[in-house]
Amino acid sequence: MFSVTVRDHFMVAHSFRGEVFGPAQRLHGATFIVDATFRRAELDADNIVVDIGLASRELGAVVGELNYRNLDDEPAFAGINTSTEALAKIVADRLADRIHDGALGEGARGLDGIMVTLHESHIAWASYERGL
Amino acid sequence: MFSVTVRDHFMVAHSFRGEVFGPAQRLHGATFIVDATFRRAELDADNIVVDIGLASRELGAVVGELNYRNLDDEPAFAGINTSTEALAKIVADRLADRIHDGALGEGARGLDGIMVTLHESHIAWASYERGL
Amino acid sequence: MFSVTVRDHFMVAHSFRGEVFGPAQRLHGATFIVDATFRRAELDADNIVVDIGLASRELGAVVGELNYRNLDDEPAFAGINTSTEALAKIVADRLADRIHDGALGEGARGLDGIMVTLHESHIAWASYERGL
Amino acid sequence: MFSVTVRDHFMVAHSFRGEVFGPAQRLHGATFIVDATFRRAELDADNIVVDIGLASRELGAVVGELNYRNLDDEPAFAGINTSTEALAKIVADRLADRIHDGALGEGARGLDGIMVTLHESHIAWASYERGL
Amino acid sequence: MFSVTVRDHFMVAHSFRGEVFGPAQRLHGATFIVDATFRRAELDADNIVVDIGLASRELGAVVGELNYRNLDDEPAFAGINTSTEALAKIVADRLADRIHDGALGEGARGLDGIMVTLHESHIAWASYERGL
Amino acid sequence: MFSVTVRDHFMVAHSFRGEVFGPAQRLHGATFIVDATFRRAELDADNIVVDIGLASRELGAVVGELNYRNLDDEPAFAGINTSTEALAKIVADRLADRIHDGALGEGARGLDGIMVTLHESHIAWASYERGL
Repeated sequence: MFSVTVRDHFMVAHSFRGEVFGPAQRLHGATFIVDATFRRAELDADNIVVDIGLASRELGAVVGELNYRNLDDEPAFAGINTSTEALAKIVADRLADRIHDGALGEGARGLDGIMVTLHESHIAWASYERGL
Repeated sequence: MFSVTVRDHFMVAHSFRGEVFGPAQRLHGATFIVDATFRRAELDADNIVVDIGLASRELGAVVGELNYRNLDDEPAFAGINTSTEALAKIVADRLADRIHDGALGEGARGLDGIMVTLHESHIAWASYERGL
Repeated sequence: MFSVTVRDHFMVAHSFRGEVFGPAQRLHGATFIVDATFRRAELDADNIVVDIGLASRELGAVVGELNYRNLDDEPAFAGINTSTEALAKIVADRLADRIHDGALGEGARGLDGIMVTLHESHIAWASYERGL
Repeated sequence: MFSVTVRDHFMVAHSFRGEVFGPAQRLHGATFIVDATFRRAELDADNIVVDIGLASRELGAVVGELNYRNLDDEPAFAGINTSTEALAKIVADRLADRIHDGALGEGARGLDGIMVTLHESHIAWASYERGL
Repeated sequence: MFSVTVRDHFMVAHSFRGEVFGPAQRLHGATFIVDATFRRAELDADNIVVDIGLASRELGAVVGELNYRNLDDEPAFAGINTSTEALAKIVADRLADRIHDGALGEGARGLDGIMVTLHESHIAWASYERGL
Repeated sequence: MFSVTVRDHFMVAHSFRGEVFGPAQRLHGATFIVDATFRRAELDADNIVVDIGLASRELGAVVGELNYRNLDDEPAFAGINTSTEALAKIVADRLADRIHDGALGEGARGLDGIMVTLHESHIAWASYERGL
């Protein structure tokens, strides 16, 4: 099994609902360093998993839709806690949509799965992994 | 599949028995940077894998039982080599016990598995992964 | 010249005023990983720069006053841009106040200077350095 | 499941063929930081996955065959793109050969699989994982 | 004293002349992770050292002139060893030229100095520091 | 001003004397990741600060004298606390002796100073800087 990972980041405000979150129920923020991993069993005709340039561009587009925003004001996240793990799924699902739409090229249709890891600090991170 | 990881560390003395260990048969020491990963298929009602605050507290308690000690003097490790990989299992099993005892909350009973990685330096680390 | 550095972090929301900031004029957020460096020419009687335990506790207290907050709502920052470099100075000055108040012990009065670095992402950070 | 990982690096020139590579079709170069992971279900009689000293020595030997070279001139890679993911497989396969030849000791014959990750920069890396 | 640092990278082929370089006299390559630090005594009217967006753009332009090239073929480097420390000076001097030309804005004319660090691997890096 | 830094590590047991150290008064241990920085105003005839190969070899020799040892049993450290900052000075002074003895080559006699940083964990490190 092969994989390729590219890294980007986004910086957002948000707050959580639920006693379990303690002081994080207040409006605060985070830098999320995002690692997007693309997996496939065999390399394509160019001997790669995916074009790193296209992968970086599409990941940049996905995080660009989140960057410099207050997630509490985003209709897409109304009523849900935008926890690190939930945001990992949102980024992964949006990347999967772009792959299915052909944004990573025809070769990328051979991808088996993706994993997205969001680092919220040097001591905590979360991942979501799914098929394609 | 979702996961959340929290990081902590502990600093111990120990020595190894067996020619394969060469100079590491002498009493020496290590800083172990510990990454504990908690996995589950679906998020809980709060949209999280596990309460990061509780996860950090319990990991801190587990490494606190090891920190600033000479492992050669610990009855729990009598007769075994406390290699990085063996210590990864010890930390993982102790975390599993705490999860089963409810220390991470009722929601944490939905966890599927954990993985513990111990970094002994910038060029060597070891992991142990298990179900719950 | 000797130095000791300890690391902590805080997670805040804020926004900037001024066209130069582009989309960062919107309410967004950041995780700031904070490195606080303490400097002195000679070690103290215990052969250390400063007690790392006390240094970590006081840095934790300073970042705790900022953590999980919207800096736009903090009276202390009214009318100023809480840029990464400006926050580095705020953390450094508050640490200096604590050193002068004796919070790091009598030995810490022998410190010559401090430097605070705030990492806003894996590709950008800022520092402020001052005497004591 | 247990694993042990050791890190090394190599520095090479190469170029790619195919429009997808854009400016990387020109002769350029890379530092590849290599993480080699060794996996097994149970620890051996010494309570380890593999002798870290031997693992480091063999990984060093494999990367030494690549280091300080222009991969475009290596007969072994004639006609193939030495992408990061393809090089991860080359390193993994060469490590597997050495394991099968006994270079990591008799105990290493109990290894179940290996994974090799090559970091080409702080924002891109690739992996290849295989059985033994 | 304040500073702001931004990170980028470039990937090049090159070779060295001189017995001291051993096998690095062969054509090989490197990924250089570049940290450019901008220093000034006081913040500007926007409460910043320099516009991070402009600093990143100009650093990107400087490394873009080097990226995906064989430095042995660049007329600018004819007859000199493009060691990591020499390349740090080249990047710093080119950034200084851009600052003097106004590319980082009028405010950047208040900068006192810059430092450029090039990481050639996880275990070796070099820096060059100069005034403006 | 130019500098070159090389990284290595050593793993030791030790204990501290003095109430300020709390539980670290017990025999414990640490992995010290060591960064040795060599500084000079101008590059030598090969366009380098120091031969990285020689610098790494000599740093390796210095840390090799400490590695896999219980520092409490070393006559050289009798009666002193081997704090991270004190060990940084020990490594720096031993490197300086080797430079003065010519172990880094004649060119290295042009070095102006060295700095040694020891990382005891991901959240604490210490440095010592001196002239040559």
